[in-house]
This record gives sequence, C-alpha cells and structure tokens, in this order.
Amino acid sequence: MNSAASEPALIGIDWGTSSLRAFLIGANGEVLDRVSSAEGIMQVKDRNFEAVFDKLISCWGHHSKLPVLASGMITSRNGWIETPYARVPLDARDLAQALVCHRTSGGTELRFVTGVTTEHASGPDVMRGEETQIVGAQAVGLSDGTFVMPGTHSKWIRVAGGRIEDYATYMSGEIFAALKGHTILGTLMEEGPHHAAGFAKGVAAGLDAGSSLLHDLFHVRTLPLMGRMEGGAVADYLSGLLIGAEVKAALARGDANGPVTIIGRSDLADRYETALTTAGLQSRRAPDEIVAKGHFLIAQAAGLIS
Amino acid sequence: MNSAASEPALIGIDWGTSSLRAFLIGANGEVLDRVSSAEGIMQVKDRNFEAVFDKLISCWGHHSKLPVLASGMITSRNGWIETPYARVPLDARDLAQALVCHRTSGGTELRFVTGVTTEHASGPDVMRGEETQIVGAQAVGLSDGTFVMPGTHSKWIRVAGGRIEDYATYMSGEIFAALKGHTILGTLMEEGPHHAAGFAKGVAAGLDAGSSLLHDLFHVRTLPLMGRMEGGAVADYLSGLLIGAEVKAALARGDANGPVTIIGRSDLADRYETALTTAGLQSRRAPDEIVAKGHFLIAQAAGLIS
Repeated sequence: MNSAASEPALIGIDWGTSSLRAFLIGANGEVLDRVSSAEGIMQVKDRNFEAVFDKLISCWGHHSKLPVLASGMITSRNGWIETPYARVPLDARDLAQALVCHRTSGGTELRFVTGVTTEHASGPDVMRGEETQIVGAQAVGLSDGTFVMPGTHSKWIRVAGGRIEDYATYMSGEIFAALKGHTILGTLMEEGPHHAAGFAKGVAAGLDAGSSLLHDLFHVRTLPLMGRMEGGAVADYLSGLLIGAEVKAALARGDANGPVTIIGRSDLADRYETALTTAGLQSRRAPDEIVAKGHFLIAQAAGLIS
Repeated sequence: MNSAASEPALIGIDWGTSSLRAFLIGANGEVLDRVSSAEGIMQVKDRNFEAVFDKLISCWGHHSKLPVLASGMITSRNGWIETPYARVPLDARDLAQALVCHRTSGGTELRFVTGVTTEHASGPDVMRGEETQIVGAQAVGLSDGTFVMPGTHSKWIRVAGGRIEDYATYMSGEIFAALKGHTILGTLMEEGPHHAAGFAKGVAAGLDAGSSLLHDLFHVRTLPLMGRMEGGAVADYLSGLLIGAEVKAALARGDANGPVTIIGRSDLADRYETALTTAGLQSRRAPDEIVAKGHFLIAQAAGLIS
C-alpha cells in the first residue's frame, strides 16, 4: 500500500473467462493494492465462485465493510449470477442504476456491473466487462472516440459525450486459434520469434479492398507450399491477415474515424497498432488498470462512495 | 459391365484426400465398371500407394495392358508422386502434355494428371483433381461458364472456349468444421435434421453487402444466446453464413457471371443451389462421374487411346 494514498473506499473485481484481478481502490479512485489469479470463470471448480471470492479478498479482511463491485464474464450464463444486458447508449450512471446486488452466504454484499447489448441489422451483439473499462478510460482523459479491445473476441467501441454509443465484436482471436490448431493452415507453420515481415504482409492482404477472407486464407497454405514464404512467418501472416480484415471491416462500419485507443495486452496492442498505422489511422494506448477506475466511477454514480 | 458398351480402353482413377474412385472406361468414353474405396491419400498406411493401387485394379487384371490415368491429391506433397503445377489458362491438350509417367515395381505404367496453379494479386492458388472434372464437363455439353465445386476447399472455376481461364479457392468447408468443433460457436448448436430456415437466414446474412465475416460470425453465438434462434438451427445458420459469404466474394471477383454449374455431392450442391438462387443466379448441376470423362479426354489428347 502507498502510505500517501487516500483511505480504501471500494473493492473492484474484473472477473473474466480465463483470469481475474481484484483491486483495493482509494477514495480518490487510485489503486492501493491488487491481487490476481488464474481462476477465470471457466477454471472455477464446481462453479464455487463464492469460495474463490472469499479467498481472494481475505487479505483485505479488515476492509470487509467496503462496497464490492464485480464486472466481466462473471455475470454471464457460465458465471456466478447471470444478469440481464443494459442497452446502448449508456454511461456510468446507467450502469450504476443497473447494478445487480448479491449477498454471499457469509453476508458480504457484492454488486455486479451488468453486461451491455446492442442491435445491428445482422443481429444482436453482447459484451461483459469491456463497458467498465470504457467508463474507466474517462477518468484518464480518454473520454471520446473509438476504442479497440483486442482479444479472443475483439470489441470496437464508439464513445461520444462520455457515453458508449455503439460497438461491434470481431472473433479474430478465437478464429486465429481455431485455424492454426485445427485446419490445414497450421501444418506448414514453424514456431519461432515474432515475424514482423510476415505479419506486415498479412495486414496488407487483409486490408486490401478486394480481399475476401474465405479465399485469402488459402494463401496461408499456398505461399509456404509454393516456397514463397518461410515456415516461421506463416502464423504471423495469418494473424496479420485476420487483424487487417478486422480493421478493414471496422473502417467500413465507421467504427474507426479519428484516432483509435487500444486497450489490452501489450503484445496484442503492438499488432493492432501496426495494423492501424498501415490503414493510415493514428492510435494511442490506454494505461493499465483502467477497469479499476471504471469500478470507482460506477460506484460513485451509484452513491456507494461519498 | 454393360454388354452393349464398347471395349475397355482406359482405367481412370480419381484419388483424393479422403477417398478414391476408379473407373474402367470404354473406347467411347463411357464408364463400364467402377470401384471405390475410403483409402484417400491420408488413409494409406505407410504411404504404400502401390499396394492400394494393385489391389484396386486387381479385379480388372485381364485389362492390365490398358493405359491408366490418375488425378487428384495423389499428386500432392502427401501423395504418391508430387508433380509440378501446370498454369492457367489450359485445356485437355495442355494437361495431356503435362502428364507425369510412373512405373510401379510390378511394371504397370501410370500417368498422373498434374495439378494446376494460378496467380492472384493476393497470392498463388492451387488445385489437384478439379481440372480433370472440368475437362470431363466438356464431354457432357457443359463446356463454358462458371463452375463451383463445393467441399472442404471450394473451387470456383471460369471456363471459356473449352479452356480453364482462372479459378479461386474458398476455405468455407474446412472453416465451418473448425468453427463448429473448436470455437464457442459450437456450444449452442443442437443436432437435428437440416434446418432450411436457419440456413436461409445465414445465406441472407452472408450475402448482405455490409456484412463482415469476422463480426457476423459472432451472431452464431448471440442469436441463440438471446433466445432468438433455436439450437437446431444454429449449425445450418453458420453453414449458410459461410456459403453466402463465399457466393458474395465470388460475385465480387466476377467469378459468377451467368449460370453456375455445380459439381459435387448432392447435399452440398443443394446448399449452393439455394445460396446461388438467393443471390439471383441461375444454377445447373453436372452429372456424376464426369471425372472419368476427363480422364478419357486427356488420354485421347495424349494419344493413349486411338
């Protein structure tokens, strides 16, 4: 703990599919302490989320009266409590009004930040957790514009006037893993360090106006087969092709006007920065732990912090 | 055998990744007899293709002096003999000149029809076996126009003046299997009979001008998640989405002007016919066993049949 910091005021939990992070948050919104664990919702034995939660915050036992906010896939069908989706457009106040309260058998009250839905012509879209990070971005001066959150299911989120206006999900990360692991495209790949040239070539192919993913993916096979790409470049070529196609689609949807703020793991953020630059777009990065700022702002809007 | 048919003149083998078919072909190009086996190249133990071949044609032992033509993935890197690719444009005569001869240890001479390559701005494309079927289509009055050959890797082939002008591969079939089996999209699918309405909805989404596959695929998750699609429709929705996107891409490439001839398994052909009709295109079907006609025409062009 930082002795110069304000008093603890809130516990925030970002509980995702494959990991969780908990934050002890001060009265000014700063992170005083943090713990993390690999116990994402899919790793919790017998779905005993309460046991994981109790263990997680036991180190902060002397703060057991603090309000607790949790966000992320923990509110999904496979999580602790399945909560309804709030609809775009929305901001911290709307999320505060939609908090779902839950009392553990030990008497601790948690409040879940609910997920968010939007409706496109092609169908509905859903997210759980990203909305809290977007709220947090406002606390660090990143209030408006386009945000991209790379990952298994990338989110492109438009924010205007401090509100989440709309967003779209792209399955690039999960599709990369499925194609690499379970199709012929993986067979000519060789493990190795990041291959920047292979990635750049893939990005260019994915961004190309005439490209069609179902066709162009076959080049991940034919280029090494014909001796025109070394094996160590192939996986990064596939990664670039998918990320390039994602950026092209986001541009076509109008999701990438102006500078794009990248929120996420640094290796993935590097890839998106390269793709955005290649597409002629400026990008900037959000600092780590903005999710805790989101928990703080939502708790404040809910009147949980004076 | 048909007693009214001409004398046997050729043995043709269509040897693919997962199965093979052999034909005893008469002097007029008709199929006199056929055998098939599940011994595609990936199922041949110790790559002992010769043993499979010897067993396969043993029933036609009294015709052991006939010329033998083989086409398909048998000429690929994982096949018996890896042959070079011929380049588009080409016709039966070009394929006849490019035949690759091989003598088995038993003294039988085989001739392999080599694969075909083309060059797109985005990279090279390859096929092995489809070119022989296209040649065969000419023998049944289907000489010009666009051909689609659905499958693991669909081929769209343009034929003009009896020559293969160009073609493109779409990975729709293999991607369908990878997404269904190895991503979150498979988790809300329920087995059941073909769901025509789910398929049609997917086709419409895939054909939509504003669609982006990386985004729209997420609706395969969200529609059943939000209770807007029954589980029994989901797999066919995914199938329709991919086939619709393939047809849209082929149209954009100019690969689908005029009626399209579908060559392939009838259940897949039905799906493509539906997608083509939805896209406003007429389609027709090629008869079965045109590959044997292709073997016949190439053998004739090579002077192997008088």
